[in-house]
Formats: sequence, C-alpha cells, structure tokens
Amino acid sequence: MTPGAGLRVAVVGATGAAGGTVLQILEERDFPIATLIPLASARSAGRTVQFRGTSLPVAEATPATLRDADICFLAAGASAARELAPAVVAGGGIAVDKSSAYRADPAVPLVVPEVNPETLADHRGIVANPNCVATPLSITLAPLQRAHGLRHVTVATYQSASGAGRALVAELEEQEQAHGAGEPLEARVYPHVLHHNIVPGGWTMEGEDTEEERKVVAETRRVLGQPGLALSVTTVRVPVPVGHSAAVWVELEEPVSAERARDLFSGAPGIRLVDDAGSQSYPTPQQAAGGDKVLVGRVRRDLGRPGALAFFWSCDNLRKGAALNAVQVAELLTQPARVLS
Amino acid sequence: MTPGAGLRVAVVGATGAAGGTVLQILEERDFPIATLIPLASARSAGRTVQFRGTSLPVAEATPATLRDADICFLAAGASAARELAPAVVAGGGIAVDKSSAYRADPAVPLVVPEVNPETLADHRGIVANPNCVATPLSITLAPLQRAHGLRHVTVATYQSASGAGRALVAELEEQEQAHGAGEPLEARVYPHVLHHNIVPGGWTMEGEDTEEERKVVAETRRVLGQPGLALSVTTVRVPVPVGHSAAVWVELEEPVSAERARDLFSGAPGIRLVDDAGSQSYPTPQQAAGGDKVLVGRVRRDLGRPGALAFFWSCDNLRKGAALNAVQVAELLTQPARVLS
Repeated sequence: MTPGAGLRVAVVGATGAAGGTVLQILEERDFPIATLIPLASARSAGRTVQFRGTSLPVAEATPATLRDADICFLAAGASAARELAPAVVAGGGIAVDKSSAYRADPAVPLVVPEVNPETLADHRGIVANPNCVATPLSITLAPLQRAHGLRHVTVATYQSASGAGRALVAELEEQEQAHGAGEPLEARVYPHVLHHNIVPGGWTMEGEDTEEERKVVAETRRVLGQPGLALSVTTVRVPVPVGHSAAVWVELEEPVSAERARDLFSGAPGIRLVDDAGSQSYPTPQQAAGGDKVLVGRVRRDLGRPGALAFFWSCDNLRKGAALNAVQVAELLTQPARVLS
Repeated sequence: MTPGAGLRVAVVGATGAAGGTVLQILEERDFPIATLIPLASARSAGRTVQFRGTSLPVAEATPATLRDADICFLAAGASAARELAPAVVAGGGIAVDKSSAYRADPAVPLVVPEVNPETLADHRGIVANPNCVATPLSITLAPLQRAHGLRHVTVATYQSASGAGRALVAELEEQEQAHGAGEPLEARVYPHVLHHNIVPGGWTMEGEDTEEERKVVAETRRVLGQPGLALSVTTVRVPVPVGHSAAVWVELEEPVSAERARDLFSGAPGIRLVDDAGSQSYPTPQQAAGGDKVLVGRVRRDLGRPGALAFFWSCDNLRKGAALNAVQVAELLTQPARVLS
C-alpha cells in the first residue's frame, strides 16, 4: 500500500447500520479508494448501495471476494469476522474489524486512534475496534488517566437502539406508529418493547452481567493499557434511535477539581466540551448524532467522594462509536498525517 | 379524628398528575372519607374531577377552603404549600405535603412509611414526602442499611416525563405525533426536546448540580436517618411517560453477596424482586407503571468493587414515588393497621 496510490477497499456488512456509516465516512473524508467492493451476507447480496453518487451492487462476502483487498472493513458479526479476516490477511491486506471476534486476542491490537495509536505498529493484518461504549469512554478517560492516574470508574449507560442494529431502530419506529394509531405494541426483535421504556438487560446475559458490561470492562482496560483498572458498569437501552450516552464517576490517584478536568477535556483529541449549566448546555444524544466528537459535559465534583469527579458524555454510536473509529484506524495505517483531524 | 368516623379530606392540585393519582389511590384503598374537597389553583378552578363515580367541581385552593379539613393532601408547588399548610394546621387538620417546601425543615418529619414510620410521631400538623427518586431509593436501601450498614451509594437515574408534570407528558406525546407526521419538533415546556433524546440537566440547576441531585442526596439521608451518608448522584430525564428507574451501586460496612441482598430485598416492605437474567426478567418502567411496588432486579456483585453490590430499580413515580406514599402516610395517621399492605 502506497499512500495516494488508491486502494482496493472492501466493506463487509455494507447494507447494515455500521457498514452503511463506514461508506458514508469513507466518502466524507475522501479516503483514497481506487476500487470499492461492497459486500454483505448471502441474505443481503444483490441489493445496491450508494457511493460517490454511484449505485454499486452488493456481492456476497466470501473469502474469495476479499483476496485482493488492501483494506477490508468488517462491519458484520463475530462469526463472519472469524471466517473472513484470515482471508484478507492471506491476500496481504489488512482487516479492520468492528465485531468482538478479536478484541480479546493479545495478537490483535484494539485501537482507538485518539488513545493508543502506538499499538497499531504491532498489527499482523488484523486490527480490532472496541465496542460503541468502550470507544467513547476510553476517549474521555484517557486525558484524566495521563494527567492524574485512574483508580476507579463507575459508568451507567443510556444506549440507543442503533447500537443493536437497524432492526431495533425499525422496531422502535413501528412501536411509535402503533402507539400513535392506538394499536398494540409488539416486540419481535428485542426481548422487551423499547418504546416509552428502558431496558437494563438486553439480548445476551453472561451470568448476572450483560455481555455489554463485560465488554466495556475488558475493552476499556485494554485500550487504556491498565489491565487492573476497576470499573463498575451498568448498561441500559433507551428509546433513542442514534446516540449513546453515559453518566460517569471517576476516582483519580490524586484529587482533581472540575476546572482542571474541564481544561483536560478541552485540550483532548476527539472531545468537544459542552458544559454550561447556566444556559442548559450539556451533552444530549440528539446533539451528538451526526457528529464526530464525543460531547462531554456536566463536569463537576462528585458529591459523594471528595476529590473525585462526575461527568456525562454523548456520542454518535454509529460514527465515533463504530465506523469513524474504523476509518480513522485505516487512515493511520495508510496516511498517518490525516488522522485525528 | 376517630378511625372509621369518616374524614373531611382536601386534595390541593386535584387536576394535576400527582393530585389526580391521589384521588385515584384514595378511591382504590377505600380511604374513610366523609367529604372530599378537590382544590386547585385559580387557573384550574371550575374544572371537575371524578371520585367514586361522581363528578365533583374543583374550587380554588385558599386558606379559607382548608379550615375544616381533617387531612389535606398538598400536591401543588412549594410556594402553594407554604401558603396553605399553615391554614390546615390552624384548623386542627394535618397537611401531607408532596412539595419540597418542608422537606428540609427539622420540625417536619419526612416520611416513607416502609422506612421511617416512627418519625411521624413527632409531627406538628405537617408531614413532608420525599421526592420521587428519594422515596423508592430509600425503600431499596433501607433493608441493606439495617442488615449491613451503608458506606457509599452511587445512583444514575432514568426519570420519566411525568415526574416533571402533565405538561411534559403532553409535550412528549406532541413531539411523537410531529415526528410521525414529518413535522418539526418543538420544546416549549422543557429546555430540550425529550422525544428520541435524553436530558442530563433539566429545569433547575444549582451551580453544577441539578436541583434534583441535591434533593436526592439531602432527602435520602434524612429518610434513612444517616446524615453523613455519602451519595454520588446523576439525574437524567428519559422519553418515558411514567416510571422512574435507577442504576445503583452500594458499598456496605461489610462484604455482602448478591444472594444475601436478594434475600433482604425479597423480605422488605414495598419491594418486589424481579430478577431472573435467564428469562430476561428485570425491572422496567413499563412493568412498574400502575403498580405499588418498587421493582428491584439485576442484583449482582459490583464488578469494580469487591464485596459491593449493584442493582436496578423501577417504580411508578406518580404512585409510590408520590401519591401512594402520601396516602400511606395518611393511613398511618388515621388507621395504623392498614399501612404497608
């Protein structure tokens, strides 16, 4: 791969929420693509996607279709990633995987460009992206960690429907329409009706925890390079289509004031401070949706722990939480000067 | 007041969300009412409310209208409460106030019947009710406190629109209809659009905190009788019409297992344990709405603090969070055997 030469880029899951956002961001950021290969599961193959004003047919993703890719974005499930990533590597390309397949694999770097870009140097053809809570959480914790050291982090999430895929966004919309029409609400995709509700569990439980809670703990530790970091996490789904948020409390290795924390957030990559209580200015998912920054606000002393901090973030889970992070990783691999812009 | 004699009962705010629920619960629980006096602000006077199948006219609440009340439920704002409660007391009646007017007054008991009924004995004619987060939070913390002592509590809330009054519920519904019709969404009642959004601030900020956060800290301490209890609180509004929820982490004076905590919750008044991860069974606001119990679930060890606990609760904020608590207080005052059923 030579910067500027134009790359063969495959996107697996091109018809899904995350893959569709990858296409959009590749176009927005003018990624140097000579050939774009949109791929999906057998079920979605044959559909078309739009890229640079052109309608492109979507082929079925098989190992053979990935042989010649320089970069392959895997925006599909973990089992598809496990099947397809080795084919990309065998062909000499790099697989940038959004799934959980390789996130715990010590041979695969788990990269958030704003936090641990140096770990990319060790890649062997596969790069993993953290889940859509761990990515913005790591971005917000990194400047505090660097300056003052992290001792303990508590996180309660407010996660949007799109984090669980397009089907749940559609189901939420259907439920809203049914409510408006006075008809009964159905939950087929998700275990509970999400309209006018919040759901503190979700699809997959691992014992007493949600799978998501385990991921947030393990992946945030890896990205921050602090394997023993203590994290208390509760993940909750809310009836919002796009935009994850979280209430966070942080204990640091030394007392830190809210003013100092605001300074650190202001100067940190990937963050926009939205924090003026007087004008009702604080992060909301609606404000974060469509943007590339993690919005941070409600930065204040923790009322219950002297010297500790509380804050709140919102982030577009499809962009920075997923697709944008993957494209930034690809930019770091191919055109290092561009990243973090 | 003699039990069984039939009481003169006034309800101020009878046309509002909380007052309307007071009327409903008085009827459901067959409170011994001889005469019901529905009252409201001058703006709402002249409307009618339903009680025991009869339509009753609503008069303007003035000190004179309360002179003969045995019990007066004040489901209005703090300034109305400050004006009207003394008139109830002057007439020999008892004012049960839902507002924040008297919650910090050391001469007024702040009562959750499941937690601190003994404090009622000291009333001088006015009894205060905690806010709609502090009440269910105290109910869930009380059994843990009694058995093992509380050291620190962290709370992230997921509060419904009705906690801010009927106008916000109506605004949320209007926003949903506008969304369905493809029209622009307006926020007139609240600082931000709540539809498809979450709002970590709200109407009133006190410095860096929401007024709600300060209330939850102060009132939970008072109800639990632990003035030094350390509480870390972030309050957030979600697009749910009825039903408040919270993610809670608790450090106790000694290590406590999830099994032990479940046992304590199961045997505690006011709580229903809804906790089976395998069957996707956990508290949701939709499940709590219309019910009298605080639903508690997702009881588990805190992943980030050895020996500590995490759990989640949902509660009907209009019933147990407000009106039911007030009616239970009145039952304790007039017919002690009935309460906590």
